[in-house]
Amino acid sequence: MDRCGSYLETMRSNAPLVQCITNFVAMNTVANVLLAAGASPAMVHDAEESGEFAGIAQAVTINMGTPSPRWLEGMEAAAQGAMAAGRPWVLDPVAVGATAFRRDIGARLLALKPGVIRGNASEILALAGAAARGKGADSADSVSEAEEAALRLAQSSGAVVAVTGPMDFVTDGKRGFRCANGHALMPKVTALGCSLTGVVGAFVAGQPPLEATAAALAFFGLAGEEAARGAEGPGSFQVAFLDALHRLSPEDLDRGARLEAA
Amino acid sequence: MDRCGSYLETMRSNAPLVQCITNFVAMNTVANVLLAAGASPAMVHDAEESGEFAGIAQAVTINMGTPSPRWLEGMEAAAQGAMAAGRPWVLDPVAVGATAFRRDIGARLLALKPGVIRGNASEILALAGAAARGKGADSADSVSEAEEAALRLAQSSGAVVAVTGPMDFVTDGKRGFRCANGHALMPKVTALGCSLTGVVGAFVAGQPPLEATAAALAFFGLAGEEAARGAEGPGSFQVAFLDALHRLSPEDLDRGARLEAA
Amino acid sequence: MDRCGSYLETMRSNAPLVQCITNFVAMNTVANVLLAAGASPAMVHDAEESGEFAGIAQAVTINMGTPSPRWLEGMEAAAQGAMAAGRPWVLDPVAVGATAFRRDIGARLLALKPGVIRGNASEILALAGAAARGKGADSADSVSEAEEAALRLAQSSGAVVAVTGPMDFVTDGKRGFRCANGHALMPKVTALGCSLTGVVGAFVAGQPPLEATAAALAFFGLAGEEAARGAEGPGSFQVAFLDALHRLSPEDLDRGARLEAA
Repeated sequence: MDRCGSYLETMRSNAPLVQCITNFVAMNTVANVLLAAGASPAMVHDAEESGEFAGIAQAVTINMGTPSPRWLEGMEAAAQGAMAAGRPWVLDPVAVGATAFRRDIGARLLALKPGVIRGNASEILALAGAAARGKGADSADSVSEAEEAALRLAQSSGAVVAVTGPMDFVTDGKRGFRCANGHALMPKVTALGCSLTGVVGAFVAGQPPLEATAAALAFFGLAGEEAARGAEGPGSFQVAFLDALHRLSPEDLDRGARLEAA
Repeated sequence: MDRCGSYLETMRSNAPLVQCITNFVAMNTVANVLLAAGASPAMVHDAEESGEFAGIAQAVTINMGTPSPRWLEGMEAAAQGAMAAGRPWVLDPVAVGATAFRRDIGARLLALKPGVIRGNASEILALAGAAARGKGADSADSVSEAEEAALRLAQSSGAVVAVTGPMDFVTDGKRGFRCANGHALMPKVTALGCSLTGVVGAFVAGQPPLEATAAALAFFGLAGEEAARGAEGPGSFQVAFLDALHRLSPEDLDRGARLEAA
Repeated sequence: MDRCGSYLETMRSNAPLVQCITNFVAMNTVANVLLAAGASPAMVHDAEESGEFAGIAQAVTINMGTPSPRWLEGMEAAAQGAMAAGRPWVLDPVAVGATAFRRDIGARLLALKPGVIRGNASEILALAGAAARGKGADSADSVSEAEEAALRLAQSSGAVVAVTGPMDFVTDGKRGFRCANGHALMPKVTALGCSLTGVVGAFVAGQPPLEATAAALAFFGLAGEEAARGAEGPGSFQVAFLDALHRLSPEDLDRGARLEAA
C-alpha cells in the first residue's frame, strides 16, 4: 500500500463529516477522538432524521452498543441513507453474540451491506456464525482464532473486516494486513474500540477501504503507544491519547506504523 | 454594565439549580462544567417529569443536539414549566438547519419564548431564517455575518441572542456586547458550546439576561485562555479547562474579561 | 470484618461482569471507574435484553438518574432477571424525592428486593419515607440525620443500605460501619456517586454484602484522597482518581481504610 501517513494526510485535508450512531457510553469519547484526529463528528441517530442526514455526511458509522427498538430503526434508516448516497458505512457489532436481541440486530445490519466491519475477536466470530466466548463487550477469543472467520465474513458480506486486539487483522477477503500498534492500557479505557470505529469511518471517506482501514488501525494504535509514555494509569492515559491523536503527523505515522501484509 | 466579576460572584453565591436538557454527547461535560463553575446541574428530560422539575429549578436550558420525538415532548414540557414558574430558559439550537426535523423543533421551541438563545453563526442564521452553511454541528459562517441575523432574531423573539465563535456577539435587539475571550483549542473539544449554554443558564438565574450572558461568555472564554497555557492538545486542555472554571475568581474575571459595548 | 484489602483482592481476581443500568450523564464515568478498579462493566438497559443479560452478569446495578417509562421497563426486567439468577442487584435512587415520577419508580424498584441500596442522605431519607431536603441530585441533609432512616430502611427492605457523604454509613439493619475516607473535591465531579454504586456492585458479586460494601466505600474514598494530592481542581482530580483506582493495592487499602464498626 501507499505511505501509511498519506491516508492520515488525506483524511485531515478532507476533515470529513462523519455521522456516528454510537452507544451512550461512547458518544462523548468518539466525538472527542474524531475532533482530535481532525474529522468532524455528528451524532445523529433518530429515525426522524438519520436517513436524511446520511445524505449529507461523508461517512456513517453504526455501533450497536446500547441498542433499543427505536434506535434500531434509526440505524437502519442511516445505513439505507448511506447506501442511497453512495457513501461508505462502518458497522461495529458490539457484544453481538450476547443476547437474542443483539444477534437479530447484527443480522439485520449485516444485510444492509456495511463497507467495513470492525469488532473484537468474539464479535467477529459471532457475526460470522462461529462459536464465540465474549464476556459482555470484552473479547474472550484471540484475534488469530478470528482471522479465518474474518476472511469468511469478508467474502460472504463484501465488507472489509477488521478484527482488533493486541494484534489487529484486516482483510477484504483476498488481501489483508496485520497491525501490531497499540498498548495494554487501551482496553482499560472504555469506548476506545467504539472510537476506533469512528476513526475508520473518517479514513474510509473517499479513500480505498482496505488500505484506509489499515492506516486507521496503525494511527490509532500508535497514538496509544505515544500516550502510554508517561501515563500513570487509565485516567492520564486517556488525556494523553487525545493529545497524541491531535499531534501525530503523517510523517510520524510513516515512521511508527507496524503494518505488514498478511 | 456592572463589574463583570459581580455576575460570577452572584452566580456562585446562588449556586443555582440548573435543569439541563442536553444531548447525549454533552451531558457529562455540561454537568462537570456547571459543577466546576459553582452551579448545581440536574439532567431531567423526560416528559413524565421535566415540566414538574422546571418548577423547582432556578433556570432551564434546552439543547436539541440529539433530538427524538419523545425528547421533544420533554423539552416542550420543560419550557412551559419554566414559563409558568417565571424562570428563564435558554435555547441551544444545535445544527438547527441540518434536517427538516431540526427546523421543525427549532420553530416549536422558539414559539415557547426562550429568554436567551445561544448558538454558532450558522445556527443563528438558520433560526433567523437566513441562508446558513453549517456542517453538522460546526459553523461554516462567521459571527460578523450573523450579527444582523442575531439583532433581527432578538427583536422578533424577545430573547437575548448570543452568537459565539472566535469573537462572540450578544444582543437584546437594542444594545449589545462583543466578547473577545476564548482560545482556538475550544472547538477541538466536543460539547463546549453546549456547556457554555449551561453556564449561561446559571448566570441568568435571577440576574439581568443581557449582562449576565455577556459575563458568562467572558468567564467561559477566559477559562479557555487559562487552560490553553501549558495544554499539549485537546485532552490536557479539557482537564485544565475544568480546573480553570473552578479556580477563576470574580477579580480574575474583572481583569481578564475582553468585553466591549457593540 | 476481614482485612479490607481482601475484598478488593477477591473482586479483582473475579473481575466480575457488572451489568450497569445507569443514567446518561454517568455512563462513561461508571464504565471507566469499573475498568480502572478491575471489573468488567456492561451497559445493557433496554427491556428487550436487560432481563436476559442479567442472567449472564455477576451483579446488576440500577441507577434511576435519568428515568423514562421505557427505561423503567428495562430496569424492572433486569432486577427480576437478577433475582431469578440469584445474583445481587444494587439500587441507586437518584433524586428519588424530587418528582412524583421518581417517587413511583423508587417504590417499584424497592419492591423488587435490591440486595444493596446506595444513596446520599436526602435520597435515603426520601426512600425511607422521611422528609428530605435534597436539591436536584445533591443532598441537603447530613449522613448522621439519615442513619436512623437507613437502619429502618434496611430492616423493612432486607437490603444493606449505604448512605454516603463526608462520613459514610452502611448497615444491614443490625450491624453497621462508618467510613471516613473521601475528599471534598469528589462532589465537584459529576457521576462519582453513580460510579461508587457500580463499584459496590463489583465488590458484592460473590462476597458478603455488608462487608463488601464497606470495603468498596473505603476503596473509593481512599482513591479520592490519593487523587486529591496534587490535583489543581476537579478536572485534574478526575484524571488522578482513575489512575488511583487502578494503582491502589489491597495492602494500600488495608493501610488507608478508615472504617469502624458503628
